[in-house]
Amino acid sequence: MTEIRVSASRDYSVLIGSGLLKNAGEYIKDFCKNNVAAVITDDVVDGLYYESLERSLNEKGITAVKFVMKNGEGSKNAENFIAILNFLAENRLTRSDLVIALGGGVVGDIAGFAAATYLRGTGFVQIPTTLLAMVDSSVGGKTAIDLEMGKNLAGAFYQPSLVLCDYDALNTLPEKIFADGCAEVIKYAVLKDRGLFDYLMETGTEFDREKVIAECVAIKRDIVGEDEFEKGSRRLLNLGHTLGHAVELCSEYSVSHGSAVAVGMAEIARRSAVNGLCSEECAKEVCGVIERFLLPVDTDINGEELYGAMLSDKKRSGEKISLVIPREVGRCEVRSFDVEKMKEFFGF
Amino acid sequence: MTEIRVSASRDYSVLIGSGLLKNAGEYIKDFCKNNVAAVITDDVVDGLYYESLERSLNEKGITAVKFVMKNGEGSKNAENFIAILNFLAENRLTRSDLVIALGGGVVGDIAGFAAATYLRGTGFVQIPTTLLAMVDSSVGGKTAIDLEMGKNLAGAFYQPSLVLCDYDALNTLPEKIFADGCAEVIKYAVLKDRGLFDYLMETGTEFDREKVIAECVAIKRDIVGEDEFEKGSRRLLNLGHTLGHAVELCSEYSVSHGSAVAVGMAEIARRSAVNGLCSEECAKEVCGVIERFLLPVDTDINGEELYGAMLSDKKRSGEKISLVIPREVGRCEVRSFDVEKMKEFFGF
Repeated sequence: MTEIRVSASRDYSVLIGSGLLKNAGEYIKDFCKNNVAAVITDDVVDGLYYESLERSLNEKGITAVKFVMKNGEGSKNAENFIAILNFLAENRLTRSDLVIALGGGVVGDIAGFAAATYLRGTGFVQIPTTLLAMVDSSVGGKTAIDLEMGKNLAGAFYQPSLVLCDYDALNTLPEKIFADGCAEVIKYAVLKDRGLFDYLMETGTEFDREKVIAECVAIKRDIVGEDEFEKGSRRLLNLGHTLGHAVELCSEYSVSHGSAVAVGMAEIARRSAVNGLCSEECAKEVCGVIERFLLPVDTDINGEELYGAMLSDKKRSGEKISLVIPREVGRCEVRSFDVEKMKEFFGF
Repeated sequence: MTEIRVSASRDYSVLIGSGLLKNAGEYIKDFCKNNVAAVITDDVVDGLYYESLERSLNEKGITAVKFVMKNGEGSKNAENFIAILNFLAENRLTRSDLVIALGGGVVGDIAGFAAATYLRGTGFVQIPTTLLAMVDSSVGGKTAIDLEMGKNLAGAFYQPSLVLCDYDALNTLPEKIFADGCAEVIKYAVLKDRGLFDYLMETGTEFDREKVIAECVAIKRDIVGEDEFEKGSRRLLNLGHTLGHAVELCSEYSVSHGSAVAVGMAEIARRSAVNGLCSEECAKEVCGVIERFLLPVDTDINGEELYGAMLSDKKRSGEKISLVIPREVGRCEVRSFDVEKMKEFFGF
C-alpha cells in the first residue's frame, strides 16, 4: 500500500493499494465519530461493492445508510443533489457523521458537493472505483454538479478526510471506462513527468497500478497544493479539457470524458506546434502515446461549433480564455487568450 | 457613514449609512470587473428599490440582470436555489461577475449560497434591506437554504466582497419585520455589551440606527473573527436560537424568527436563573428589554413538542446539544448538554 499525504485547507491521506475496500471500516473508523455513515453510490457499483463495504463498516461498529442513483453522467444533476441533501436530513445526519462516496467521478462529485453543503459541511470519505476518479476527481477538493447549460457549473471546493483507492476495483471496470482514466494518466505525464511518459509508452495499458496511480496522485497533489482555489497554476490540470469539454458538449456527451480529453490534448499539441510553441516532435509524441492507449486523436465536429461551445466554458474570465500549452513533454504552461486570438490559434 | 472592516477568509467592508442604495454603483464598481451583475431580490423589495439600484449601477457602466422570487421564508428552498443557478448560467455569468443580494435575510441567504456554488464561487455583494439582515445574516459568511426537514439545513460559508447597509430602507419596513431585527439587536447586547443593553432599555425602538447597527455588526464581526467556521465560540450567536428554532418549527413558522428568538432568549434566561447559572435579576432584565421592544417572552407550545423539535437542530453533535447560557447581561457562554440533561434544564 502507498500513502500519499495531501496538505490543503484540510490535510488528508490518499491510500492506494489492494484489498482496501473490504477493510474500509478499519481506515474509516477514525473519521466517523458518531459511527453513522451515509454511502452515496450508483446502481452498478452498488451491486459490485456495497455489500462488502457495509460488512466492513458494520464490523467496526459503523451503521450505514445508502443512497443509490442511476449510473452515468446524467445523474450528476440538480435533482439528485437535492435528493441527496434531503436523504441526509431524513436520516438526521449530524456534522460529526460521514458521507462516503462509493463509485466513479459522478458519484464522487455529487456526493462531495452534498457533503460540502449539508449543514454547511459534514465529514467526507471518497472510495473511487474508476481509474479516472482515483487519479483525478478524488484528489484536489473539487466537487460539482452539472446544470442544463453545461457540466460542473455549480459546486464547491471541499476536501475529503480520506481517499481509499482500491485498484482491485479496476478489474471490474469496462474497457471503455478504464480508457477514460488512461487519458488523465497521460495528461499527468505530459504535464510534469517525462519518466512516467516514457514508461506509459512502453507498457501501454499494462502499467503497474499502484505505481502509476500514486505518481499521478502525487503530481495532482503538488499542483493543487500551490493553488487550492484555482486562481492560477492549478489551471494546468485543464490540459486538453477546454477543447475536450467542447467535444463532449457538441457530441451531446456521446463522446466520453476521457476520449474527449484525449482529442483535446492531441489537438492542443498539434496546434501548439503549428503556432511555434512546441516542437513537431513533441506533438507527435503526445499523439503517439494517446494512440498507444487506443484513444482518439481527432474529432469530426467542425471548428465553428467547437468554438461556440468553448465560449461557454467556465474557465473563461470575461473576454479571456485560458489554454494549457505543452512546451515539451513534461512541461506545460497556462496562457490567457483573447477569444478572437484563441480562434486563430485553433485555426477555426 | 460608518465603515466596519471584517477580516475573514476574504476581507470586506460593511458600510452603514443613509443614501447608500441610490449610490450603490459607486461602491460596487471596484468589485465588478466585467461590469455585469445579477441582482437577486424578492417581489416586494423589487418594487421598492430595484429601479434605484439599477439606475445607479448603469451610471457606473454596470449591466444588471434580475431574478425575482416571492417574498417570504417559503422562497428559501431548493427549487429557487437551482432556479437561481440556472439563471446565472443562462446569463453566462463568469467568475469575475457579481451576484448582488437585494433584500432581507431570505434573499441574502439563498443568493449567497448561489454565489458560493455557481462556478464554485463568484463575486458577491449584500444589500440588506431589513434590520435583521443588516445586523445578522449579512455579516459572517453563513449562507443557506431550507430543506423539507428544517431550516438552513444546506449552505456554505462564503464571505461577501462588500455589504451596504442603507438604513433608509428601514423606513419602508413593516413594524413586525422591524421587530424581528430588534430581537437580534437585543441578542448582541445580552451577549457582549452592557452599555448597549442599557441604551436600548432607554430608547426602545427609537434607537440611533447607524450607531446601533454599527455596534451590532462590530460585535458579530469580533465573534465570527474568532471562529469563522463555527467550531466553537461562534456558537454564542445562537443565544435564544436553539429553542427559538423549535418554536418556529412547532408553530409551522407562524411565529416569526425574531419573536421566536425573543421567546428563546427569555426562556433560556429564566431557566439559567432556575438552574443557578445566572441571577434572578439578570433573567428579569433580559425579559424586561424584550418586553420594552413589544416582543414576546412566552409561548404556549408545550415542552414535549419543543424538546422533539430541538433534537432535530443542526447544532446537535451526536447525543450532545449546545446551549448559550447568559451568566450576566453582557457575558454569555456556550455549554454542551447531553440531550437528557437539556430536558431537565428546561424542565420539559
